[in-house]
Amino acid sequence: MVDQAGRSGVEGRGRGSQGRYQVVVIGGGFGGLPAARMLGFADVDVVLLDRRNHHLFQPLLYQVATGILSEGQIAAPLRHVLRRHKNVTVELAEVRDIDLDRRVVKANRMFDEPLEVSYDSLIVATGSGQSYFGHDEFAVHAPGMKTIDDALEIRRRIFGALEAAETASSPTETEEWMTMVVVGAGPTGVELAGQIRELAVRSLDGNFRHIDPAQVRVILVDAGNEPLATFGDKLSAHAARFLTGAGVELRMATRVNGVDAGGVDVRGPGGDERITARTVIWAAGVEASPLAGMLAAASGAEVDQAGRIAVQADLTLPGHPEVFVIGDMATLDHLPGVAEVAMQGGIHAARSIMRRRRGEPTGPFHYRDLGSMATLGRFRAVLSVGRLRLTGFPAWLVWAFVHIVTLSTAAGRVGTLLRWAGAMIGHSRNERNFSVGRTGGDVSLPAHDRAAAP
Amino acid sequence: MVDQAGRSGVEGRGRGSQGRYQVVVIGGGFGGLPAARMLGFADVDVVLLDRRNHHLFQPLLYQVATGILSEGQIAAPLRHVLRRHKNVTVELAEVRDIDLDRRVVKANRMFDEPLEVSYDSLIVATGSGQSYFGHDEFAVHAPGMKTIDDALEIRRRIFGALEAAETASSPTETEEWMTMVVVGAGPTGVELAGQIRELAVRSLDGNFRHIDPAQVRVILVDAGNEPLATFGDKLSAHAARFLTGAGVELRMATRVNGVDAGGVDVRGPGGDERITARTVIWAAGVEASPLAGMLAAASGAEVDQAGRIAVQADLTLPGHPEVFVIGDMATLDHLPGVAEVAMQGGIHAARSIMRRRRGEPTGPFHYRDLGSMATLGRFRAVLSVGRLRLTGFPAWLVWAFVHIVTLSTAAGRVGTLLRWAGAMIGHSRNERNFSVGRTGGDVSLPAHDRAAAP
Repeated sequence: MVDQAGRSGVEGRGRGSQGRYQVVVIGGGFGGLPAARMLGFADVDVVLLDRRNHHLFQPLLYQVATGILSEGQIAAPLRHVLRRHKNVTVELAEVRDIDLDRRVVKANRMFDEPLEVSYDSLIVATGSGQSYFGHDEFAVHAPGMKTIDDALEIRRRIFGALEAAETASSPTETEEWMTMVVVGAGPTGVELAGQIRELAVRSLDGNFRHIDPAQVRVILVDAGNEPLATFGDKLSAHAARFLTGAGVELRMATRVNGVDAGGVDVRGPGGDERITARTVIWAAGVEASPLAGMLAAASGAEVDQAGRIAVQADLTLPGHPEVFVIGDMATLDHLPGVAEVAMQGGIHAARSIMRRRRGEPTGPFHYRDLGSMATLGRFRAVLSVGRLRLTGFPAWLVWAFVHIVTLSTAAGRVGTLLRWAGAMIGHSRNERNFSVGRTGGDVSLPAHDRAAAP
Repeated sequence: MVDQAGRSGVEGRGRGSQGRYQVVVIGGGFGGLPAARMLGFADVDVVLLDRRNHHLFQPLLYQVATGILSEGQIAAPLRHVLRRHKNVTVELAEVRDIDLDRRVVKANRMFDEPLEVSYDSLIVATGSGQSYFGHDEFAVHAPGMKTIDDALEIRRRIFGALEAAETASSPTETEEWMTMVVVGAGPTGVELAGQIRELAVRSLDGNFRHIDPAQVRVILVDAGNEPLATFGDKLSAHAARFLTGAGVELRMATRVNGVDAGGVDVRGPGGDERITARTVIWAAGVEASPLAGMLAAASGAEVDQAGRIAVQADLTLPGHPEVFVIGDMATLDHLPGVAEVAMQGGIHAARSIMRRRRGEPTGPFHYRDLGSMATLGRFRAVLSVGRLRLTGFPAWLVWAFVHIVTLSTAAGRVGTLLRWAGAMIGHSRNERNFSVGRTGGDVSLPAHDRAAAP
């Protein structure tokens, strides 16, 4: 029987506030937010659950880590973004379980207070976290780049390392603080490595008396053969040339075997090597949110090596047409783990739910590849759209335009443009407050322990 | 004998890098930074010691606490501000002792590494901290408003309280979270109270589904008879009217006897009262930096109730003409503890040192009162300059102009103007990232402990 809830046999159980059809969306990221927004126009009740109060614009996280942007410029408050959709309720809560049989999401609110929300349809979009490929012990020495906290920690370490270098008691020690290793040469790693060099060479010019920040060594390590490997040979080669010219040392085809407070142990084409460095940043791998494993176990769905759920062609959980799993935590047709896939997935899920409600047929998810891009440095980017390959300033213009228009708030857009002008035309990197000492102090010391280094 | 170092018998001992005269400045705030900048043009070596890497523009701290500005917009990196003064070295270190006889400042750098700096002249400008009038135990429940950390903590509490109110399980609990007490009706307390109401009424409009943020009660408590008492009766009365109209409840002539997780105990004209409130902010008193007491003990100088050193007419430490003590940590002729006094004191000290070096006479410190002002809310301020009293929009224009031009960096100026436009013309308060849960999460929960409340 095809009821009001659509062709897939999902029953409209009327769990919403006026006994209406209720959609629960878990995660307000690139997948969940567009879904909630679109459903905000539909005749359904929507509950958006997120443990953060903001949508994070992750592609610009590296600019927070390098002092260009403030947290608020890349974090749009979910309540603010969704304020006009009165049928959407935002719940600040962390999901701990999903009961697929009873169709109930169980979460913890502030103060660990339990919250249960029933759903007629569910969209799970909790994305991915940093993966250390089984070496979680690396995390303390090499923070990842997934959250605002991560970015602020990395910022403290970068600026703290330069402060430590300025006052180091020996040339060896200075050199150790002046060496930074970025693991992973995907867009995040490449952008971060380029920005650290730019920060050192341009923005900090004249700031120090004992060190020359332009001497900062940035070493970019990746197991693949070239940076930005997913962009194809031509752009990879361009990126490699640009990075080398900007003073980034590339160590490709090189695996990281160990990370400690004093540096990294790597194995490259030339054999085993120890890179002494007090600052190591991990931008290498991702693994699906733990909810993926939980859903897979409950439904019998398969997961891949990165913990992602193998979803049906329409992005639903096998055997559960009422549950959509989208974005980085799902795998389908080898789609890349990028924001665009999550966004289109969120829109597909929302649209499918609306079509079912109207009794219209739904189809499989078709991803429309809009291309990929990454900045290399000031006014430089690489761009790949279909067969088009673009580099340099034209690519940067497109990059800047796309990133500005996709920021969620008008204030974020204008403010970000302004900071870019300040950082790229001028020299300003104002977001770098930092302090020492036990009494008061705004920001803690970098987590490095000088004593722990060899 | 009057030597090169000037009339006051200070010997030029040549401790600088090329055996030059060395001035040490402790503290890069409103007193120390102008002093270091001015000395940056003189033929002396300058060492500026601060435990923070930034100059903090405290008068706008309340805008960080209420989500309008980011930290970087009111924190100018000292190294950046002073980069062109090659004779100025910034040392990130916390001073722990001053040896007046040997003329040596002892400090701790990062990792607690000791640093000793000799001086020919010394300027001490470490300002003041929050005072709880002997009740330091209040601090955990009622954070102060002196540092960026303080402002971020208050921001978490304000936004966290509204989140908690949204999900509270009883009307009583909702009310407790919707009540906020600000202790102290000086400029900081008045500005904060006004901004919290404005945030609730304008910026958060439509953000919540269960509470109406406009119902937030803000109670402003002060032992004096009126808000902004130092501004005089006319402006105080204006401020009182405006605040009441904006929905701030004034409890004047009211003393705070106790603060705990559930509220404050006060004694007012109507007797003892318990105000139940989960959010309490302390903007009531200041006490001089601990260095003041240290210097007083070492020199025999007197200190007043707030711990400030009674300095000579030329701002020097009694018996130590080579040591200037300026700003909030010094007391002279009942000068107010405002930024302007510190700035003029810093310039006086720097100028005196330069004159002595040239063998010219130096004189006492003359404070030129440029007036005082405070914002009451959107486009509203009060202003007192000489006999002039100004209120409303004209006063706000002057306030905005003065605050914009005195921000230390161009980027800070433009960015701040923009945020004001966003917050005052629009509704944006983007700086409010916040999260719940144990795994990851950008920002910790407010320190309130629900269980600890009565």
